[in-house]
Amino acid sequence: MYVPPAAPDARAPISDEQLDLKLKRVAIDTNLENVVYLNRDCLIYRIAGFQALSKVEVVAGEHRITATLNVVDDAAIISPDEIGLSEDAFKRFGVEAGALARVRHAEKPASVGALFRKINGERLEKDDYHAIVRDITGGHYSKIELTAFLIATSNGELDRDEIYFLTDAMVASGRRLEWQEHMVVDKHCIGGIPGNRTSMLVVPIVAAHGLLCPKTSSRAITSPAGTADTMEVLANVNLAQDRIASIVREHRACLAWGGTADLSPADDVMISVERPLSLDSTTQMIASILSKKIAAGSTHLLLDIPIGPSAKVKTVPDAQRLRKLFEYVASRMHLKLEVVITDGRQPIGQGIGPMLEARDVMRVLENDPRAPQDLRHKSLNLAGRMIEFDPDVRGGDGYSIARDILESGRALHRMHAIIEAQGAKGFKHDNFMLGRLSHEVVAERDGMVLGIDNLQIAKIARLAGAPKVPNAGIDIMHKLGDRVKRGDTLYIIYAEFPSDLLFAMQQCEKASGYTIGDDTEIPHSYLEF
Amino acid sequence: MYVPPAAPDARAPISDEQLDLKLKRVAIDTNLENVVYLNRDCLIYRIAGFQALSKVEVVAGEHRITATLNVVDDAAIISPDEIGLSEDAFKRFGVEAGALARVRHAEKPASVGALFRKINGERLEKDDYHAIVRDITGGHYSKIELTAFLIATSNGELDRDEIYFLTDAMVASGRRLEWQEHMVVDKHCIGGIPGNRTSMLVVPIVAAHGLLCPKTSSRAITSPAGTADTMEVLANVNLAQDRIASIVREHRACLAWGGTADLSPADDVMISVERPLSLDSTTQMIASILSKKIAAGSTHLLLDIPIGPSAKVKTVPDAQRLRKLFEYVASRMHLKLEVVITDGRQPIGQGIGPMLEARDVMRVLENDPRAPQDLRHKSLNLAGRMIEFDPDVRGGDGYSIARDILESGRALHRMHAIIEAQGAKGFKHDNFMLGRLSHEVVAERDGMVLGIDNLQIAKIARLAGAPKVPNAGIDIMHKLGDRVKRGDTLYIIYAEFPSDLLFAMQQCEKASGYTIGDDTEIPHSYLEF
Repeated sequence: MYVPPAAPDARAPISDEQLDLKLKRVAIDTNLENVVYLNRDCLIYRIAGFQALSKVEVVAGEHRITATLNVVDDAAIISPDEIGLSEDAFKRFGVEAGALARVRHAEKPASVGALFRKINGERLEKDDYHAIVRDITGGHYSKIELTAFLIATSNGELDRDEIYFLTDAMVASGRRLEWQEHMVVDKHCIGGIPGNRTSMLVVPIVAAHGLLCPKTSSRAITSPAGTADTMEVLANVNLAQDRIASIVREHRACLAWGGTADLSPADDVMISVERPLSLDSTTQMIASILSKKIAAGSTHLLLDIPIGPSAKVKTVPDAQRLRKLFEYVASRMHLKLEVVITDGRQPIGQGIGPMLEARDVMRVLENDPRAPQDLRHKSLNLAGRMIEFDPDVRGGDGYSIARDILESGRALHRMHAIIEAQGAKGFKHDNFMLGRLSHEVVAERDGMVLGIDNLQIAKIARLAGAPKVPNAGIDIMHKLGDRVKRGDTLYIIYAEFPSDLLFAMQQCEKASGYTIGDDTEIPHSYLEF
Repeated sequence: MYVPPAAPDARAPISDEQLDLKLKRVAIDTNLENVVYLNRDCLIYRIAGFQALSKVEVVAGEHRITATLNVVDDAAIISPDEIGLSEDAFKRFGVEAGALARVRHAEKPASVGALFRKINGERLEKDDYHAIVRDITGGHYSKIELTAFLIATSNGELDRDEIYFLTDAMVASGRRLEWQEHMVVDKHCIGGIPGNRTSMLVVPIVAAHGLLCPKTSSRAITSPAGTADTMEVLANVNLAQDRIASIVREHRACLAWGGTADLSPADDVMISVERPLSLDSTTQMIASILSKKIAAGSTHLLLDIPIGPSAKVKTVPDAQRLRKLFEYVASRMHLKLEVVITDGRQPIGQGIGPMLEARDVMRVLENDPRAPQDLRHKSLNLAGRMIEFDPDVRGGDGYSIARDILESGRALHRMHAIIEAQGAKGFKHDNFMLGRLSHEVVAERDGMVLGIDNLQIAKIARLAGAPKVPNAGIDIMHKLGDRVKRGDTLYIIYAEFPSDLLFAMQQCEKASGYTIGDDTEIPHSYLEF
């Protein structure tokens, strides 16, 4: 039961000044979640009826921030006359330590009415999505509200116009780059295929052809390497926006990390919930990909949808449905979109993990005979399709133009120029130190490789340390259709730390990811590429 | 990018002992969320690739706990060789400070596969619900996973068998009381009507008749007072289970707080998310109410469903649908259920807030002429229906038996006995100190009271301080159908603190909650009670 702060006979009114608190930066990193720390004996805590984990608003002059309350019983962390903010929250608040601040119950964000209607299954309008995304970007949604929004808008809950509204709202939530050119091309893969580093080949090829391709990529979220992680082996990818602009002006392309550009920032907030939930809904995928590309100034986008039994999309009809949704939203957003459906039955290339994938990319660029032919072929195919965005190129000529650029060394030359411009790391792809611990996974019988599970291979490579440990990962020795003998090495796991190798090996014992059988069991190839 | 903890030429293997950390209790209250604190320079943090807010598992011998990671940059809070746990997490972990502990990536809880299927719209089976509820009760779900489950199972997403599975799983998640009697009665209201303190009248009446009624109640979640908050004005409600048992043995009843009994503990965890989302889905309502009652050992339950324009249920057909769902699940759980649909068009009684409601209850028990007649009448009606659970009572006789018990003073006598047994607070309902600040809300025109908004009245009373400040709240002077003159007092707001009164008055200015109009505008009374 509530105990008043003073005896009833000493019921002095509380003055406003008694509610002022001294701001303190608490050196605790709570990532995207703003946390405020109050001492349990703090007057306002005692009279305002806050609860731990309740949402409060901290105010100092014009500055205000909403945060989740943690109650502190240790005056060394926060004393009763102080108010603490977690590291990122302190930065976002933008007020210096020691300044006076007050705290009060946070008003619910203005858009929760719309959120509650969506939870109840209603269709929302454009204004609703803009209001919700503004509140998400502004940090006004708690993790709980954010999760509720993502689940209530996941698969099947939104019609195609609502997906367009959401995409449009996400573009409006951040900056929008202008390249002052009539054509800005980009490519994107919906993901799920380990080793699939085509961007690092496609970008120098199309730039060498003369197209403008200011490529920004993400780091791996659930995969063993993203394009940004792999490019980072070769060059600096953490570039300021004006640096990117000058590199693109000079070389027609870049291969940078997109995280600092404030493009569709709502997407980054949503990912903080999607990642732990392994949530990969069609709605979010479309809104996330298209909003990032449009905000980055793209006018033409080539989208790669791989299909296969362990890919994100499993059948051709599913891929067609997804394609039509992408096309509808892109057309509403005035983005020219080409969709390519590709073979996603197994990893692309040989290496899985940042350094191993960087090696594969460089071998393709150098026309090295050891280069993985599937990665080379797929990249030429995609680059060719992008080159055909060029109105001066005849339909069907793109592939041979791309191949000529690659075989002549012009793609390699352009890649070197981009690496130098971004800041070369001096990575020697023919002589680098792989993870000092390794384990060979061998065939348990004679036969043919009939299946490779993308998800299991990705999981093992991640447990081995990729992408955090750049020289960890998997080197694949046999692909679909290869004949193997019992004891042949299927792939080698590389790790830097004993516990990482142990976790990866334990996962291997559950399932190696490989299916080996007789020639007669070859599944009917449901796709021709 | 990842920076190895040592130069490549000093690649000494890391010994297992280097991963041991000294356990520390961090005096930060994060309520139901377990938080673990690691210093950014801690070896395991640097090599394991944890991220702030990622889910980790802390292990010491047989003890383990999953928690959300906060990264600390201040060695005074946590040094690199320590591992900290937030207050409640430290208690739950059950290991003493200074003991050695390790931290690792938390495995996803076993039931997330089922959770992901539900998010994708699949129907789940009994085993799935049991697995999910076990993980929720065990604290293995993050706030994000918990929210995802609640939204994915909210209105319309579960069929009636799934609601039964969920209810059954929630009962199985905690203790189940046994009273060794063939009939244990209880009553429950689905809520939403301010002032509706019938339990404190019904319980002493039915106990005086001889029925066993071990009533445990919740505190207010979103209302200005729960039964536990109001009873706490009169007596201690925070009772150990064996104390409750002995009171019930002696007096056939109690009026205690249910929070300590470990009954359907999953419900308490779910409420921590439902509350900030104002989520009140039918699914959760049914599973929550029935699981608590069945775990408390009830065999017979009377359920009150008020309907009205600002009640939770707005129409008779909606109430009937809800009734059938309750009846179906109750019958699967072998609970005898009677549903009463009641008038929820306005608050019940005169006072809103713990002390004001306690006053109303005592006036009814004392047959005081000032007692609110609607509260008296409704309580007699409900008590009568419960008395008819008694096979020796003729159908239709319950009301007059209840009235006789009340008018004879036997109900008051029983209430005094229960108060004494639980520990009387000595509250004088005819002479107590209301909040020292007050504000009268007056009629702005002559006319008749045509509408009173339950939600607005509840909101104003809460802003005034109820239930945290027990002498705050609202005293109602006019109810539906009353004729008023311009300037007549409609209700008085009581508050203890200036800021509380200010917030309540600001809310009043938006809307007083009262609609006053002409006699000719009287809405057709859609319900007769």
